[in-house]
Amino acid sequence: MRWARIEVDGAAVHGIVEGDEVEVVTGDPFDGYERTGNRLPLDAVKLLVPVVPKTFYAAGLNYLEHVKEQAALRGTEPNIAERPEIGYRANNALIAHGEAIVIPADATDKVEYEGEIVAVIGKQAKHVAVADALDCVLGYTIGNDVSERNWQKSDRTMWRSKNTDTFKPMGPWIETDVDLDALETTVRLNGEEMIRFKTNHMLFGIEAYISAMSQYITLQAGDVIWMGTEGAARNLEDGDVVEVEIDGIGTLSNPVIREG
Amino acid sequence: MRWARIEVDGAAVHGIVEGDEVEVVTGDPFDGYERTGNRLPLDAVKLLVPVVPKTFYAAGLNYLEHVKEQAALRGTEPNIAERPEIGYRANNALIAHGEAIVIPADATDKVEYEGEIVAVIGKQAKHVAVADALDCVLGYTIGNDVSERNWQKSDRTMWRSKNTDTFKPMGPWIETDVDLDALETTVRLNGEEMIRFKTNHMLFGIEAYISAMSQYITLQAGDVIWMGTEGAARNLEDGDVVEVEIDGIGTLSNPVIREG
Repeated sequence: MRWARIEVDGAAVHGIVEGDEVEVVTGDPFDGYERTGNRLPLDAVKLLVPVVPKTFYAAGLNYLEHVKEQAALRGTEPNIAERPEIGYRANNALIAHGEAIVIPADATDKVEYEGEIVAVIGKQAKHVAVADALDCVLGYTIGNDVSERNWQKSDRTMWRSKNTDTFKPMGPWIETDVDLDALETTVRLNGEEMIRFKTNHMLFGIEAYISAMSQYITLQAGDVIWMGTEGAARNLEDGDVVEVEIDGIGTLSNPVIREG
Repeated sequence: MRWARIEVDGAAVHGIVEGDEVEVVTGDPFDGYERTGNRLPLDAVKLLVPVVPKTFYAAGLNYLEHVKEQAALRGTEPNIAERPEIGYRANNALIAHGEAIVIPADATDKVEYEGEIVAVIGKQAKHVAVADALDCVLGYTIGNDVSERNWQKSDRTMWRSKNTDTFKPMGPWIETDVDLDALETTVRLNGEEMIRFKTNHMLFGIEAYISAMSQYITLQAGDVIWMGTEGAARNLEDGDVVEVEIDGIGTLSNPVIREG
Protein backbone atom coordinates (compact mmCIF):
# COMPACT_ATOMS: atom_id res chain seq x y z
CA MET A 1 0.00 0.00 0.00
CA ARG A 2 1.19 3.48 -0.87
CA TRP A 3 0.32 6.31 1.55
CA ALA A 4 0.42 9.92 0.40
CA ARG A 5 -0.34 13.10 2.31
CA ILE A 6 -1.99 15.65 0.06
CA GLU A 7 -3.55 19.09 0.16
CA VAL A 8 -7.31 19.15 -0.45
CA ASP A 9 -9.15 22.48 -0.12
CA GLY A 10 -6.21 23.91 1.84
CA ALA A 11 -6.16 21.07 4.40
CA ALA A 12 -3.70 18.21 4.77
CA VAL A 13 -5.34 14.79 4.35
CA HIS A 14 -4.06 11.29 3.83
CA GLY A 15 -4.73 9.22 0.75
CA ILE A 16 -3.97 5.83 -0.79
CA VAL A 17 -2.15 5.94 -4.12
CA GLU A 18 -3.47 3.40 -6.65
CA GLY A 19 -2.17 3.65 -10.19
CA ASP A 20 -2.46 7.26 -11.30
CA GLU A 21 -5.08 8.15 -8.71
CA VAL A 22 -5.14 8.83 -4.99
CA GLU A 23 -8.16 7.97 -2.86
CA VAL A 24 -8.75 10.34 0.07
CA VAL A 25 -9.29 8.73 3.48
CA THR A 26 -10.53 10.05 6.82
CA GLY A 27 -8.04 9.50 9.64
CA ASP A 28 -4.49 8.42 8.92
CA PRO A 29 -2.37 5.31 8.45
CA PHE A 30 -1.19 5.35 12.07
CA ASP A 31 -4.40 5.53 14.12
CA GLY A 32 -6.88 4.09 11.62
CA TYR A 33 -8.70 5.34 8.53
CA GLU A 34 -11.71 4.89 6.28
CA ARG A 35 -11.77 5.22 2.51
CA THR A 36 -14.05 8.01 1.25
CA GLY A 37 -14.46 6.96 -2.39
CA ASN A 38 -13.13 10.39 -3.37
CA ARG A 39 -10.49 9.57 -6.02
CA LEU A 40 -8.30 12.34 -7.42
CA PRO A 41 -5.85 12.23 -10.33
CA LEU A 42 -2.37 11.98 -8.81
CA ASP A 43 -0.94 14.55 -11.19
CA ALA A 44 -3.55 17.13 -10.12
CA VAL A 45 -2.95 17.01 -6.35
CA LYS A 46 -0.26 18.74 -4.33
CA LEU A 47 1.82 16.14 -2.50
CA LEU A 48 2.88 17.16 1.01
CA VAL A 49 5.68 15.78 3.16
CA PRO A 50 4.23 12.29 3.78
CA VAL A 51 4.55 12.62 7.56
CA VAL A 52 5.73 15.34 9.96
CA PRO A 53 7.66 13.33 12.55
CA LYS A 54 7.49 13.84 16.28
CA THR A 55 11.22 13.13 16.28
CA PHE A 56 13.38 13.22 13.13
CA TYR A 57 16.20 10.66 13.36
CA ALA A 58 19.12 10.23 10.95
CA ALA A 59 21.80 7.53 10.96
CA GLY A 60 24.45 9.69 9.32
CA LEU A 61 27.58 7.87 8.16
CA ASN A 62 26.16 4.41 7.43
CA TYR A 63 27.67 3.31 4.08
CA LEU A 64 31.38 2.51 3.82
CA GLU A 65 32.30 4.44 0.64
CA HIS A 66 30.50 7.56 1.86
CA VAL A 67 32.34 7.45 5.20
CA LYS A 68 35.66 7.27 3.32
CA GLU A 69 34.68 10.09 0.94
CA GLN A 70 33.63 12.39 3.78
CA ALA A 71 36.86 11.69 5.69
CA ALA A 72 38.93 12.42 2.59
CA LEU A 73 37.07 15.72 2.20
CA ARG A 74 38.11 16.69 5.72
CA GLY A 75 41.64 15.27 5.44
CA THR A 76 40.95 12.94 8.38
CA GLU A 77 40.95 9.17 8.89
CA PRO A 78 37.60 7.53 8.16
CA ASN A 79 35.64 7.15 11.41
CA ILE A 80 33.78 3.90 10.79
CA ALA A 81 30.93 3.39 13.23
CA GLU A 82 31.35 0.47 15.62
CA ARG A 83 27.72 0.50 16.72
CA PRO A 84 24.45 2.08 15.56
CA GLU A 85 24.34 5.54 17.16
CA ILE A 86 21.52 7.65 15.83
CA GLY A 87 21.62 11.37 15.07
CA TYR A 88 18.98 14.01 14.41
CA ARG A 89 17.66 16.38 11.79
CA ALA A 90 15.10 19.22 12.13
CA ASN A 91 11.50 19.48 10.96
CA ASN A 92 11.87 23.09 9.79
CA ALA A 93 13.99 21.83 6.89
CA LEU A 94 11.42 19.38 5.47
CA ILE A 95 9.95 19.99 2.02
CA ALA A 96 7.80 17.78 -0.20
CA HIS A 97 8.40 16.14 -3.56
CA GLY A 98 8.47 18.85 -6.22
CA GLU A 99 9.26 21.73 -3.89
CA ALA A 100 12.44 23.76 -4.38
CA ILE A 101 15.70 23.30 -2.48
CA VAL A 102 16.67 26.93 -1.84
CA ILE A 103 20.41 27.51 -1.31
CA PRO A 104 21.05 30.65 0.80
CA ALA A 105 23.02 33.43 -0.91
CA ASP A 106 25.93 33.09 1.54
CA ALA A 107 26.35 29.33 1.13
CA THR A 108 29.50 28.15 -0.63
CA ASP A 109 29.27 26.06 -3.81
CA LYS A 110 29.78 22.84 -1.79
CA VAL A 111 26.07 22.03 -1.45
CA GLU A 112 25.49 18.34 -2.10
CA TYR A 113 22.65 15.82 -2.30
CA GLU A 114 22.47 12.56 -0.30
CA GLY A 115 19.87 10.01 -1.47
CA GLU A 116 18.53 7.94 1.42
CA ILE A 117 15.88 5.41 2.30
CA VAL A 118 13.67 6.53 5.21
CA ALA A 119 11.94 4.13 7.60
CA VAL A 120 8.60 5.46 8.91
CA ILE A 121 7.63 4.13 12.35
CA GLY A 122 4.03 2.85 12.47
CA LYS A 123 3.50 2.20 16.15
CA GLN A 124 5.04 2.89 19.53
CA ALA A 125 8.05 0.69 20.30
CA LYS A 126 10.50 0.27 23.20
CA HIS A 127 13.05 -2.49 23.97
CA VAL A 128 12.59 -4.17 20.57
CA ALA A 129 14.73 -7.17 19.57
CA VAL A 130 16.50 -7.03 16.20
CA ALA A 131 14.33 -9.90 14.93
CA ASP A 132 11.12 -7.95 15.72
CA ALA A 133 12.35 -4.48 14.78
CA LEU A 134 10.69 -4.19 11.36
CA ASP A 135 7.28 -4.98 12.91
CA CYS A 136 7.05 -1.38 14.14
CA VAL A 137 7.77 0.07 10.67
CA LEU A 138 4.74 1.26 8.69
CA GLY A 139 6.69 1.65 5.46
CA TYR A 140 9.44 3.45 3.61
CA THR A 141 9.88 6.77 1.87
CA ILE A 142 12.83 8.63 0.35
CA GLY A 143 14.93 11.49 1.71
CA ASN A 144 17.54 13.84 0.27
CA ASP A 145 19.88 14.95 3.07
CA VAL A 146 21.10 18.15 1.38
CA SER A 147 24.34 19.33 3.02
CA GLU A 148 26.53 22.44 2.83
CA ARG A 149 29.94 20.79 3.33
CA ASN A 150 31.93 23.87 4.35
CA TRP A 151 29.43 24.79 7.07
CA GLN A 152 29.44 21.15 8.13
CA LYS A 153 33.21 21.44 8.63
CA SER A 154 33.30 24.91 10.23
CA ASP A 155 30.26 24.88 12.55
CA ARG A 156 30.00 23.32 16.02
CA THR A 157 26.69 21.66 15.09
CA MET A 158 24.92 20.75 11.84
CA TRP A 159 22.25 23.43 12.38
CA ARG A 160 22.69 25.22 9.04
CA SER A 161 24.84 22.72 7.10
CA LYS A 162 22.03 20.18 7.18
CA ASN A 163 18.98 21.94 8.67
CA THR A 164 18.67 25.13 6.65
CA ASP A 165 15.05 25.52 5.48
CA THR A 166 14.32 23.29 2.42
CA PHE A 167 17.44 21.11 2.93
CA LYS A 168 15.41 18.00 3.77
CA PRO A 169 13.19 16.93 0.84
CA MET A 170 11.15 13.83 1.81
CA GLY A 171 8.63 11.85 -0.25
CA PRO A 172 6.87 11.35 -2.54
CA TRP A 173 4.88 8.90 -0.35
CA ILE A 174 5.21 5.97 2.04
CA GLU A 175 5.31 2.49 0.50
CA THR A 176 4.40 -0.30 2.91
CA ASP A 177 5.29 -3.32 0.73
CA VAL A 178 9.01 -3.51 0.00
CA ASP A 179 11.71 -6.15 -0.04
CA LEU A 180 14.60 -4.19 1.47
CA ASP A 181 17.30 -6.52 0.14
CA ALA A 182 16.05 -6.15 -3.44
CA LEU A 183 16.11 -2.34 -3.52
CA GLU A 184 18.50 -0.10 -5.42
CA THR A 185 18.90 3.63 -4.84
CA THR A 186 19.70 5.82 -7.84
CA VAL A 187 20.50 9.53 -7.75
CA ARG A 188 20.14 11.56 -10.95
CA LEU A 189 21.20 15.15 -11.51
CA ASN A 190 19.45 16.81 -14.45
CA GLY A 191 18.58 13.34 -15.74
CA GLU A 192 22.15 12.00 -15.59
CA GLU A 193 22.81 9.08 -13.26
CA MET A 194 25.27 10.09 -10.51
CA ILE A 195 25.30 6.94 -8.40
CA ARG A 196 23.49 3.65 -8.01
CA PHE A 197 23.84 1.47 -4.91
CA LYS A 198 22.21 -1.41 -3.07
CA THR A 199 19.87 0.38 -0.66
CA ASN A 200 20.30 -2.15 2.15
CA HIS A 201 24.10 -2.37 1.91
CA MET A 202 24.50 -0.43 5.16
CA LEU A 203 27.06 -0.64 7.95
CA PHE A 204 24.10 -1.13 10.31
CA GLY A 205 20.70 -2.03 8.92
CA ILE A 206 17.30 -0.61 9.82
CA GLU A 207 16.64 -3.50 12.24
CA ALA A 208 19.93 -2.89 14.08
CA TYR A 209 19.24 0.83 14.42
CA ILE A 210 15.66 0.42 15.61
CA SER A 211 16.62 -2.22 18.15
CA ALA A 212 19.54 -0.16 19.51
CA MET A 213 17.57 3.09 19.63
CA SER A 214 14.62 1.45 21.36
CA GLN A 215 16.74 0.37 24.34
CA TYR A 216 16.75 4.03 25.46
CA ILE A 217 14.15 5.74 23.28
CA THR A 218 10.42 5.16 22.81
CA LEU A 219 9.82 5.31 19.08
CA GLN A 220 6.47 6.89 18.21
CA ALA A 221 4.14 6.45 15.26
CA GLY A 222 5.21 8.91 12.58
CA ASP A 223 8.84 9.15 13.64
CA VAL A 224 11.22 8.86 10.70
CA ILE A 225 14.70 7.35 10.52
CA TRP A 226 16.86 8.47 7.59
CA MET A 227 19.37 5.70 6.93
CA GLY A 228 22.31 7.47 5.29
CA THR A 229 23.75 7.48 1.77
CA GLU A 230 26.56 5.94 -0.26
CA GLY A 231 29.46 7.42 -2.21
CA ALA A 232 30.51 10.92 -3.19
CA ALA A 233 28.27 13.65 -4.60
CA ARG A 234 28.41 16.54 -7.02
CA ASN A 235 27.51 20.16 -6.15
CA LEU A 236 23.96 21.37 -6.60
CA GLU A 237 23.56 24.56 -8.62
CA ASP A 238 20.80 27.00 -9.43
CA GLY A 239 18.49 25.46 -12.03
CA ASP A 240 19.43 21.84 -11.28
CA VAL A 241 16.86 19.11 -10.73
CA VAL A 242 17.90 16.33 -8.35
CA GLU A 243 16.06 13.01 -8.27
CA VAL A 244 16.41 10.15 -5.81
CA GLU A 245 14.76 6.95 -6.99
CA ILE A 246 14.37 3.77 -4.99
CA ASP A 247 12.79 1.11 -7.15
CA GLY A 248 9.62 -0.17 -5.57
CA ILE A 249 9.12 3.03 -3.58
CA GLY A 250 9.19 5.87 -6.10
CA THR A 251 11.12 8.96 -7.13
CA LEU A 252 11.72 12.08 -5.05
CA SER A 253 12.40 15.00 -7.39
CA ASN A 254 13.27 18.58 -6.42
CA PRO A 255 14.44 21.63 -8.34
CA VAL A 256 17.30 23.74 -6.96
CA ILE A 257 17.28 27.52 -6.61
CA ARG A 258 20.13 29.70 -5.36
CA GLU A 259 19.04 32.89 -3.59
CA GLY A 260 20.36 36.35 -4.45
CA MET B 1 -0.01 35.46 31.72
CA ARG B 2 0.80 31.89 32.68
CA TRP B 3 -0.06 29.13 30.18
CA ALA B 4 -0.35 25.54 31.33
CA ARG B 5 -1.20 22.42 29.35
CA ILE B 6 -3.24 20.01 31.42
CA GLU B 7 -5.05 16.71 31.16
CA VAL B 8 -8.84 16.94 31.43
CA ASP B 9 -10.91 13.77 30.92
CA GLY B 10 -7.93 12.11 29.25
CA ALA B 11 -7.42 14.90 26.70
CA ALA B 12 -4.70 17.58 26.57
CA VAL B 13 -6.11 21.11 26.85
CA HIS B 14 -4.61 24.51 27.51
CA GLY B 15 -5.38 26.65 30.51
CA ILE B 16 -4.50 29.96 32.12
CA VAL B 17 -3.01 29.72 35.61
CA GLU B 18 -4.35 32.38 38.00
CA GLY B 19 -3.40 32.05 41.66
CA ASP B 20 -4.07 28.47 42.73
CA GLU B 21 -6.51 27.78 39.91
CA VAL B 22 -6.28 27.07 36.19
CA GLU B 23 -9.02 28.18 33.79
CA VAL B 24 -9.53 25.84 30.83
CA VAL B 25 -9.61 27.49 27.37
CA THR B 26 -10.65 26.26 23.96
CA GLY B 27 -7.89 26.60 21.34
CA ASP B 28 -4.34 27.38 22.39
CA PRO B 29 -2.03 30.33 23.08
CA PHE B 30 -0.54 30.18 19.57
CA ASP B 31 -3.55 30.25 17.25
CA GLY B 32 -6.13 31.89 19.49
CA TYR B 33 -8.31 30.81 22.40
CA GLU B 34 -11.46 31.49 24.38
CA ARG B 35 -11.88 31.18 28.13
CA THR B 36 -14.49 28.60 29.17
CA GLY B 37 -15.14 29.69 32.76
CA ASN B 38 -14.20 26.16 33.84
CA ARG B 39 -11.74 26.78 36.73
CA LEU B 40 -9.93 23.85 38.31
CA PRO B 41 -7.75 23.77 41.44
CA LEU B 42 -4.13 23.74 40.24
CA ASP B 43 -3.13 21.07 42.75
CA ALA B 44 -5.82 18.70 41.43
CA VAL B 45 -4.87 18.77 37.71
CA LYS B 46 -2.17 16.80 35.94
CA LEU B 47 0.27 19.22 34.32
CA LEU B 48 1.56 18.10 30.91
CA VAL B 49 4.65 19.24 29.04
CA PRO B 50 3.54 22.85 28.29
CA VAL B 51 4.17 22.47 24.55
CA VAL B 52 5.34 19.66 22.26
CA PRO B 53 7.64 21.49 19.87
CA LYS B 54 7.79 21.00 16.13
CA THR B 55 11.55 21.40 16.46
CA PHE B 56 13.40 21.15 19.80
CA TYR B 57 16.42 23.47 19.83
CA ALA B 58 19.14 23.68 22.50
CA ALA B 59 22.02 26.15 22.75
CA GLY B 60 24.34 23.79 24.61
CA LEU B 61 27.50 25.37 26.05
CA ASN B 62 26.28 28.92 26.68
CA TYR B 63 27.56 29.91 30.16
CA LEU B 64 31.28 30.40 30.77
CA GLU B 65 31.77 28.42 33.99
CA HIS B 66 29.84 25.46 32.59
CA VAL B 67 31.98 25.42 29.44
CA LYS B 68 35.12 25.32 31.62
CA GLU B 69 33.69 22.59 33.89
CA GLN B 70 32.73 20.40 30.94
CA ALA B 71 36.16 20.83 29.35
CA ALA B 72 37.89 19.93 32.63
CA LEU B 73 35.74 16.80 32.83
CA ARG B 74 37.02 15.75 29.41
CA GLY B 75 40.58 16.89 30.02
CA THR B 76 40.37 19.24 27.03
CA GLU B 77 40.73 22.99 26.53
CA PRO B 78 37.44 24.91 26.95
CA ASN B 79 35.82 25.42 23.56
CA ILE B 80 34.19 28.81 24.01
CA ALA B 81 31.62 29.54 21.32
CA GLU B 82 32.49 32.40 19.01
CA ARG B 83 28.99 32.67 17.59
CA PRO B 84 25.51 31.37 18.44
CA GLU B 85 25.27 27.92 16.81
CA ILE B 86 22.17 26.04 17.88
CA GLY B 87 21.90 22.33 18.61
CA TYR B 88 19.01 19.89 19.03
CA ARG B 89 17.28 17.65 21.53
CA ALA B 90 14.54 15.04 20.93
CA ASN B 91 10.83 15.07 21.78
CA ASN B 92 10.81 11.45 22.96
CA ALA B 93 12.76 12.55 26.05
CA LEU B 94 10.26 15.20 27.23
CA ILE B 95 8.44 14.72 30.53
CA ALA B 96 6.29 17.11 32.56
CA HIS B 97 6.70 18.71 35.97
CA GLY B 98 6.31 16.01 38.61
CA GLU B 99 7.07 13.06 36.35
CA ALA B 100 10.03 10.79 37.11
CA ILE B 101 13.47 10.98 35.52
CA VAL B 102 14.22 7.28 34.95
CA ILE B 103 17.92 6.40 34.77
CA PRO B 104 18.50 3.21 32.74
CA ALA B 105 20.07 0.29 34.60
CA ASP B 106 23.21 0.39 32.42
CA ALA B 107 23.89 4.10 32.87
CA THR B 108 26.96 5.03 34.93
CA ASP B 109 26.61 7.14 38.07
CA LYS B 110 27.55 10.31 36.11
CA VAL B 111 23.97 11.42 35.44
CA GLU B 112 23.63 15.14 36.05
CA TYR B 113 20.98 17.88 36.02
CA GLU B 114 21.26 21.12 34.01
CA GLY B 115 18.77 23.87 34.93
CA GLU B 116 17.87 26.05 31.95
CA ILE B 117 15.51 28.77 30.84
CA VAL B 118 13.51 27.82 27.74
CA ALA B 119 12.19 30.35 25.21
CA VAL B 120 8.89 29.29 23.60
CA ILE B 121 8.34 30.67 20.11
CA GLY B 122 4.89 32.23 19.65
CA LYS B 123 4.76 32.93 15.94
CA GLN B 124 6.53 32.10 12.71
CA ALA B 125 9.76 34.04 12.22
CA LYS B 126 12.49 34.26 9.58
CA HIS B 127 15.31 36.79 9.05
CA VAL B 128 14.69 38.53 12.39
CA ALA B 129 16.97 41.34 13.60
CA VAL B 130 18.40 41.07 17.13
CA ALA B 131 16.36 44.11 18.19
CA ASP B 132 13.10 42.43 17.10
CA ALA B 133 13.96 38.87 18.15
CA LEU B 134 11.97 38.73 21.39
CA ASP B 135 8.79 39.78 19.54
CA CYS B 136 8.39 36.21 18.28
CA VAL B 137 8.65 34.72 21.80
CA LEU B 138 5.37 33.79 23.49
CA GLY B 139 6.99 33.26 26.88
CA TYR B 140 9.41 31.24 28.96
CA THR B 141 9.42 27.92 30.72
CA ILE B 142 12.06 25.81 32.51
CA GLY B 143 14.04 22.80 31.32
CA ASN B 144 16.30 20.25 32.99
CA ASP B 145 18.80 18.96 30.41
CA VAL B 146 19.61 15.65 32.18
CA SER B 147 22.89 14.23 30.85
CA GLU B 148 24.79 10.95 31.22
CA ARG B 149 28.34 12.32 31.05
CA ASN B 150 30.16 9.08 30.21
CA TRP B 151 27.85 8.37 27.27
CA GLN B 152 28.25 12.00 26.21
CA LYS B 153 32.01 11.40 26.06
CA SER B 154 31.97 7.93 24.46
CA ASP B 155 29.17 8.19 21.87
CA ARG B 156 29.34 9.75 18.40
CA THR B 157 26.12 11.68 19.02
CA MET B 158 24.13 12.75 22.10
CA TRP B 159 21.33 10.29 21.33
CA ARG B 160 21.30 8.47 24.68
CA SER B 161 23.46 10.79 26.82
CA LYS B 162 20.88 13.56 26.51
CA ASN B 163 17.86 12.04 24.72
CA THR B 164 17.11 8.88 26.69
CA ASP B 165 13.38 8.80 27.54
CA THR B 166 12.56 11.09 30.53
CA PHE B 167 15.87 12.99 30.32
CA LYS B 168 14.18 16.26 29.30
CA PRO B 169 11.81 17.53 32.01
CA MET B 170 10.11 20.76 30.88
CA GLY B 171 7.58 22.93 32.69
CA PRO B 172 5.67 23.60 34.83
CA TRP B 173 4.07 26.19 32.49
CA ILE B 174 4.87 29.08 30.14
CA GLU B 175 5.10 32.55 31.70
CA THR B 176 4.63 35.39 29.22
CA ASP B 177 5.58 38.33 31.47
CA VAL B 178 9.22 38.23 32.54
CA ASP B 179 12.12 40.65 32.84
CA LEU B 180 14.96 38.45 31.58
CA ASP B 181 17.71 40.54 33.16
CA ALA B 182 16.12 40.30 36.61
CA LEU B 183 15.86 36.50 36.67
CA GLU B 184 17.89 34.09 38.79
CA THR B 185 18.02 30.33 38.23
CA THR B 186 18.36 28.10 41.29
CA VAL B 187 18.88 24.33 41.25
CA ARG B 188 18.05 22.34 44.41
CA LEU B 189 18.77 18.67 45.04
CA ASN B 190 16.63 17.19 47.83
CA GLY B 191 15.93 20.71 49.02
CA GLU B 192 19.59 21.76 49.20
CA GLU B 193 20.69 24.62 46.95
CA MET B 194 23.30 23.38 44.44
CA ILE B 195 23.78 26.53 42.37
CA ARG B 196 22.26 29.96 41.81
CA PHE B 197 23.08 32.08 38.77
CA LYS B 198 21.87 35.08 36.79
CA THR B 199 19.63 33.48 34.16
CA ASN B 200 20.52 35.95 31.43
CA HIS B 201 24.29 35.86 32.00
CA MET B 202 24.80 33.87 28.79
CA LEU B 203 27.62 33.87 26.26
CA PHE B 204 24.94 34.60 23.64
CA GLY B 205 21.50 35.78 24.72
CA ILE B 206 18.10 34.64 23.51
CA GLU B 207 17.90 37.55 21.06
CA ALA B 208 21.26 36.67 19.53
CA TYR B 209 20.32 33.01 19.11
CA ILE B 210 16.90 33.71 17.60
CA SER B 211 18.31 36.25 15.16
CA ALA B 212 21.16 33.97 14.06
CA MET B 213 18.96 30.88 13.74
CA SER B 214 16.33 32.77 11.78
CA GLN B 215 18.78 33.66 9.01
CA TYR B 216 18.58 30.01 7.86
CA ILE B 217 15.68 28.51 9.79
CA THR B 218 11.99 29.40 9.93
CA LEU B 219 11.05 29.31 13.59
CA GLN B 220 7.51 28.00 14.15
CA ALA B 221 4.95 28.64 16.87
CA GLY B 222 5.58 26.11 19.63
CA ASP B 223 9.27 25.58 18.89
CA VAL B 224 11.38 25.68 22.05
CA ILE B 225 14.94 26.90 22.55
CA TRP B 226 16.74 25.62 25.65
CA MET B 227 19.38 28.18 26.55
CA GLY B 228 22.02 26.18 28.44
CA THR B 229 23.13 26.08 32.07
CA GLU B 230 25.86 27.40 34.36
CA GLY B 231 28.44 25.70 36.56
CA ALA B 232 29.11 22.13 37.64
CA ALA B 233 26.53 19.60 38.82
CA ARG B 234 26.23 16.70 41.24
CA ASN B 235 25.13 13.17 40.27
CA LEU B 236 21.44 12.24 40.38
CA GLU B 237 20.62 9.10 42.35
CA ASP B 238 17.61 6.89 42.90
CA GLY B 239 15.21 8.64 45.29
CA ASP B 240 16.50 12.16 44.64
CA VAL B 241 14.22 15.09 43.86
CA VAL B 242 15.68 17.76 41.59
CA GLU B 243 14.14 21.22 41.36
CA VAL B 244 14.94 24.03 38.95
CA GLU B 245 13.44 27.37 39.99
CA ILE B 246 13.50 30.56 37.98
CA ASP B 247 11.96 33.36 40.00
CA GLY B 248 9.03 34.88 38.15
CA ILE B 249 8.48 31.72 36.09
CA GLY B 250 8.08 28.90 38.61
CA THR B 251 9.67 25.65 39.80
CA LEU B 252 10.19 22.49 37.76
CA SER B 253 10.43 19.53 40.14
CA ASN B 254 11.09 15.89 39.23
CA PRO B 255 11.83 12.76 41.25
CA VAL B 256 14.62 10.43 40.13
CA ILE B 257 14.34 6.65 39.76
CA ARG B 258 17.10 4.25 38.75
CA GLU B 259 15.91 1.15 36.89
CA GLY B 260 16.85 -2.39 37.86
